[in-house]
Amino acid sequence: PPQAQLSTILQPVGLPHYTHGVTGHHVLTVKAFQKEQLHHLFNLAHQFRLAVIRDKSLDFILKGKVMASMFYEVSTRTSCSFSAAMQRLGGTVVYLDDAHSSAQKGETLEDSVMTMSGYSDVIVIRHPKPGAIASAAQLSRKPIINAGDGVGEHPTQALLDVFTIREEIGTCNGLTVTMVGDLKNGRTVHSLAKLLTQYRVKFRYVSPVMLKMPDSVKDIVAEKGIPQEEFSCLEDALPETDVLYMTRIQKERFSSLKEFEKVFGQFIVTPELMTKAKKKMVVMHPLPRNNEISTAFDTDPRAAYFRQTENGMFVRMALLALVLGKC
Amino acid sequence: PPQAQLSTILQPVGLPHYTHGVTGHHVLTVKAFQKEQLHHLFNLAHQFRLAVIRDKSLDFILKGKVMASMFYEVSTRTSCSFSAAMQRLGGTVVYLDDAHSSAQKGETLEDSVMTMSGYSDVIVIRHPKPGAIASAAQLSRKPIINAGDGVGEHPTQALLDVFTIREEIGTCNGLTVTMVGDLKNGRTVHSLAKLLTQYRVKFRYVSPVMLKMPDSVKDIVAEKGIPQEEFSCLEDALPETDVLYMTRIQKERFSSLKEFEKVFGQFIVTPELMTKAKKKMVVMHPLPRNNEISTAFDTDPRAAYFRQTENGMFVRMALLALVLGKC
Amino acid sequence: PPQAQLSTILQPVGLPHYTHGVTGHHVLTVKAFQKEQLHHLFNLAHQFRLAVIRDKSLDFILKGKVMASMFYEVSTRTSCSFSAAMQRLGGTVVYLDDAHSSAQKGETLEDSVMTMSGYSDVIVIRHPKPGAIASAAQLSRKPIINAGDGVGEHPTQALLDVFTIREEIGTCNGLTVTMVGDLKNGRTVHSLAKLLTQYRVKFRYVSPVMLKMPDSVKDIVAEKGIPQEEFSCLEDALPETDVLYMTRIQKERFSSLKEFEKVFGQFIVTPELMTKAKKKMVVMHPLPRNNEISTAFDTDPRAAYFRQTENGMFVRMALLALVLGKC
Repeated sequence: PPQAQLSTILQPVGLPHYTHGVTGHHVLTVKAFQKEQLHHLFNLAHQFRLAVIRDKSLDFILKGKVMASMFYEVSTRTSCSFSAAMQRLGGTVVYLDDAHSSAQKGETLEDSVMTMSGYSDVIVIRHPKPGAIASAAQLSRKPIINAGDGVGEHPTQALLDVFTIREEIGTCNGLTVTMVGDLKNGRTVHSLAKLLTQYRVKFRYVSPVMLKMPDSVKDIVAEKGIPQEEFSCLEDALPETDVLYMTRIQKERFSSLKEFEKVFGQFIVTPELMTKAKKKMVVMHPLPRNNEISTAFDTDPRAAYFRQTENGMFVRMALLALVLGKC
Repeated sequence: PPQAQLSTILQPVGLPHYTHGVTGHHVLTVKAFQKEQLHHLFNLAHQFRLAVIRDKSLDFILKGKVMASMFYEVSTRTSCSFSAAMQRLGGTVVYLDDAHSSAQKGETLEDSVMTMSGYSDVIVIRHPKPGAIASAAQLSRKPIINAGDGVGEHPTQALLDVFTIREEIGTCNGLTVTMVGDLKNGRTVHSLAKLLTQYRVKFRYVSPVMLKMPDSVKDIVAEKGIPQEEFSCLEDALPETDVLYMTRIQKERFSSLKEFEKVFGQFIVTPELMTKAKKKMVVMHPLPRNNEISTAFDTDPRAAYFRQTENGMFVRMALLALVLGKC
Repeated sequence: PPQAQLSTILQPVGLPHYTHGVTGHHVLTVKAFQKEQLHHLFNLAHQFRLAVIRDKSLDFILKGKVMASMFYEVSTRTSCSFSAAMQRLGGTVVYLDDAHSSAQKGETLEDSVMTMSGYSDVIVIRHPKPGAIASAAQLSRKPIINAGDGVGEHPTQALLDVFTIREEIGTCNGLTVTMVGDLKNGRTVHSLAKLLTQYRVKFRYVSPVMLKMPDSVKDIVAEKGIPQEEFSCLEDALPETDVLYMTRIQKERFSSLKEFEKVFGQFIVTPELMTKAKKKMVVMHPLPRNNEISTAFDTDPRAAYFRQTENGMFVRMALLALVLGKC
């Protein structure tokens, strides 16, 4: 069964024996997932997608289970996606909404996690401090899913990105994946690049000079023998691209607004620019977007970013079901 | 079936065919409802009311469905009413609580709606800007219900008001409906007046001189041949009144607090004043109230305002079930 | 049946007859519970604990029921505990999150309660003003549970404390219960002391001189013939202690930080200090803690505080089921 194999990879939680049939694990980093585990996860997410589309009830799967949602940083998209995922499987959610308020009373993240693990069966945490979630997870009696820890990890984002490529194109193998924008500070593209090294892909990096993909990531990619090319202009990298992965560029990274505006125009997707791209390819974006993708492109069949955000729910459904040992 | 006829009137959403039996539609304005549709909606709301009273389970109706609750403006009453409605029918809710925060990241309402429509089956939106919801609805793949757009529309409030008159008195026909308070700026009374033109009613308007019912509304009412009378004092309008619809008067509308206090006293419901009203009539208020209705009147059988707020839940249950094609 | 006897004690709500089999009551104070009622409540909580541990479904119990959660003061722990309790029994929750915002619009607590009672079957309220909840409860058509009213009552905290002693040690009778910290201002210890007078216990109070247990509480305890001893140092009171109940001491109570630090050290639980305690005893704390209990003690089997917080959920499950007449 899928979860048995998943469970050999993910970090085990000391779950009590009385929750029979449950093999709970923390999901803290994307590194924990091998290709085999990804297949299992994505197949389940695909099945869940079909079930939702066909209006089939899935609420027997996590009926009676409670997810604790602990967001120490606002992330509406991720929070809603996890809540919808849990509830579509018949589970319920409790919110530590005012995480900051509790923190003000002087409670440590560790104590809050211990408390919430008394009320819930699985805990989803977002925290601004890298490593904080992994640290708190050591004491937790219930499985913890990292929903982003600052510049650290955001494993479910990378998983939903790869799932989207799979759903849109049918495979990740043989593809040229072009990442665009602030590749230096973008946690999303770092995790995605690492996860995609498990497939036969080629990478193209398109960014302003001072926002290049860092060597730390490029070295990991190179080790796996994945070809990498750098571009300073989107138009040059576009023609062979199968997956165009757009990200935000923040004004604040530039010395002046003038400098920003000079550069920014070269990293914008428009219907006109996209006439130079393949007819069969996809444009992705972790959202929210600023102006990197013109809304005039939204109706193009290659615009996959809203399907991508929806896929986040299906991947999280699969992850919750697997972590709670119910699939 | 009721929803078939409702569906011919409301603005259709391009719902995919795979959601078999579902005919989804946006609910943006009260103008979409004809008398026939109102009958269907109110009959269903009445059935739901009886079922809740009799402790009968309704949770098979929207089991597995998810409602997105997007409030860009605080409205606890409306938000709780929709959530309770969805959950009483077996559905669940995801909250875009920090709508403002997402907006701060520069995301448009359109993009937020596209994202939430990926997680949910129906979207309830409150927004301060008139027309913003209708505009965002154009792109949405899932039905959107307008929960108030500033001085624009608030269709479910008008629907619950008319439903309350029907439940309390048995019919809307042949009634004298007296509206009291700030009739100039009150979105609620404007929508209610328009919706009631579908019945054989008489209107009485009671307001301070500078807060009179605007001509734009009176013209629509006159076109339908509905009699209208204006009063400056509640006591004069009271004796023939079947439905007394009270609203808040805000101090800020007056040039001075003294001016406000001079005027305000003439628009207050007290047990003493109500001795001059019919024995069989109802007092309504959209709530929250300030001092327009004395709490000493709360125990009077004619005080319908708390039943009215409860009816909001039943009307929203009916609307959600119809929009999602489950009734 | 348990609820029949409970219902003779708790303050009755005028519930309409149509909700057949439901005997609803407000839970406003711990004084309402006699020993017999406590037994029934704790037995039910124990059964629920076993059911959750054994992964048995309980969601048929409050299926279709709605709990209104009205927190006029942040209390994440209590709020999450009630929500998890309601949802584990199959019920759902609506949140008056922005209670303050509604209050700003000028609505009274009484009106808000009337409104929420239209949407829900039971109401949980937290309010900073002592007595405010009891006052609002007089009008409510639905049972109200006091989740803390300032320095007033917090009945479910005292109930979960006594339940924890029962679960950990098997009985409350014959035990020496030592309360430590700010005994003057601690609502928790006041309620616990009063509730424990129903059992054969001995009390030890350990506090700084100016934070002693007030005479108002000691008089009530003395009336029941319960022995009481006072200590200024934890180490002296420890050896015979069966239940060590720790509470926070706030810096603000002291004239200077220096004064605080001088005193504070004598009221800290450490692994070293606990070598002087019995091998079979428990350490409790209402949480959140500051530094009163060293985290190095967390792995000691006598550290019961995280089990205690989890027990809060089971006690609230039992209370909700009983109040709604479903057990």
